[in-house]
Amino acid sequence: MKEAIDFWFDFSSPYSYLLSEKIDDLAARHDRQVRWHPILLGIVFKATGSAPLTLQFPPKATYSILDFQRSARYMGIPYRHPDKFPLATQHAARAYYWLDGRDGALARRFGHAVFRALFAENRDVSAPETVLELAASLGIERTELEAGMQSEPMKARLKEEVETALRLGIFGAPYVVIDGEPFFGADRLPQIEQWLATGGF
Amino acid sequence: MKEAIDFWFDFSSPYSYLLSEKIDDLAARHDRQVRWHPILLGIVFKATGSAPLTLQFPPKATYSILDFQRSARYMGIPYRHPDKFPLATQHAARAYYWLDGRDGALARRFGHAVFRALFAENRDVSAPETVLELAASLGIERTELEAGMQSEPMKARLKEEVETALRLGIFGAPYVVIDGEPFFGADRLPQIEQWLATGGF
Repeated sequence: MKEAIDFWFDFSSPYSYLLSEKIDDLAARHDRQVRWHPILLGIVFKATGSAPLTLQFPPKATYSILDFQRSARYMGIPYRHPDKFPLATQHAARAYYWLDGRDGALARRFGHAVFRALFAENRDVSAPETVLELAASLGIERTELEAGMQSEPMKARLKEEVETALRLGIFGAPYVVIDGEPFFGADRLPQIEQWLATGGF
Repeated sequence: MKEAIDFWFDFSSPYSYLLSEKIDDLAARHDRQVRWHPILLGIVFKATGSAPLTLQFPPKATYSILDFQRSARYMGIPYRHPDKFPLATQHAARAYYWLDGRDGALARRFGHAVFRALFAENRDVSAPETVLELAASLGIERTELEAGMQSEPMKARLKEEVETALRLGIFGAPYVVIDGEPFFGADRLPQIEQWLATGGF
């Protein structure tokens, strides 16, 4: 097995959702695992002087929503733009890291559940209650997770991940790193595939 | 022949250069012509509160230059990031419109020559002298073009094109419109191809 690749994202990022539906299978076909790193884009945007696409110049915001939907159709992924958007994802991110420390495969299933709840089912995943419900539907014990996602170590873990992202120069999401080579955006998927297949081009 | 598609760009935009190398052939395979619209992104960015990628947050600028080069390799197009960048392109744009009013095919060859001079040969296409030299190498009479590109009608034409772009909500380049459907970025080429092939998806 070659070195794992890193997938940096925010659970509230539409293009991160699109990439999340493809990246694990793509990596597996090239004998790679993927490390998922949920982060908080709000902090990244504050540090970099940027903003979510839908809060930018109105024609750009309108185009972005059209493009989220069309890109999803192009990739064969269900998409329903959420009524509440953008939204805070620290609870989902901390829950992800807490689960990942116990059962990586279960954390991955939980991650997909969060993305799909938000971008296919219009659910408000910023609410701790929604996060706990999604976890419960995967058989995760509710009280334990609730304590875990509110714990100081998980708050510290998320903070560290965001700081690491900023130190790496990550300015948006999704952001994938393969053996040091950075790829920004779900639309870099064909280049990611080529890079994995050939080791660079 | 179906309705022509519109290709909005600035001669100083790297991703516009990449798309310019593909869009005419792609359109022709689907029985379409392409209308080229050089505009001035500086004015668009001022109106939209944006900036060239290479003048944004330093890690984003660094990534962008890496991505221009890698995307060019991925697409099989020569690329050498210009020493002078960004740069003004009003002379090249006005020359394009002047030529287009006389000989559309020649204007297209001139457009490719400008893009390639800037992004493959590191030439300063902001200088009227360079624009005239490139045109001369295509057999275009120098004195006539010089007068044409400095004429009031060509100044007005470029201004109108930029105003039209802003009215259409164009916020960056390249920006392609097919039967009213907008596509922003060279990385939307696969979606453009699918759209042309199927009439929508």
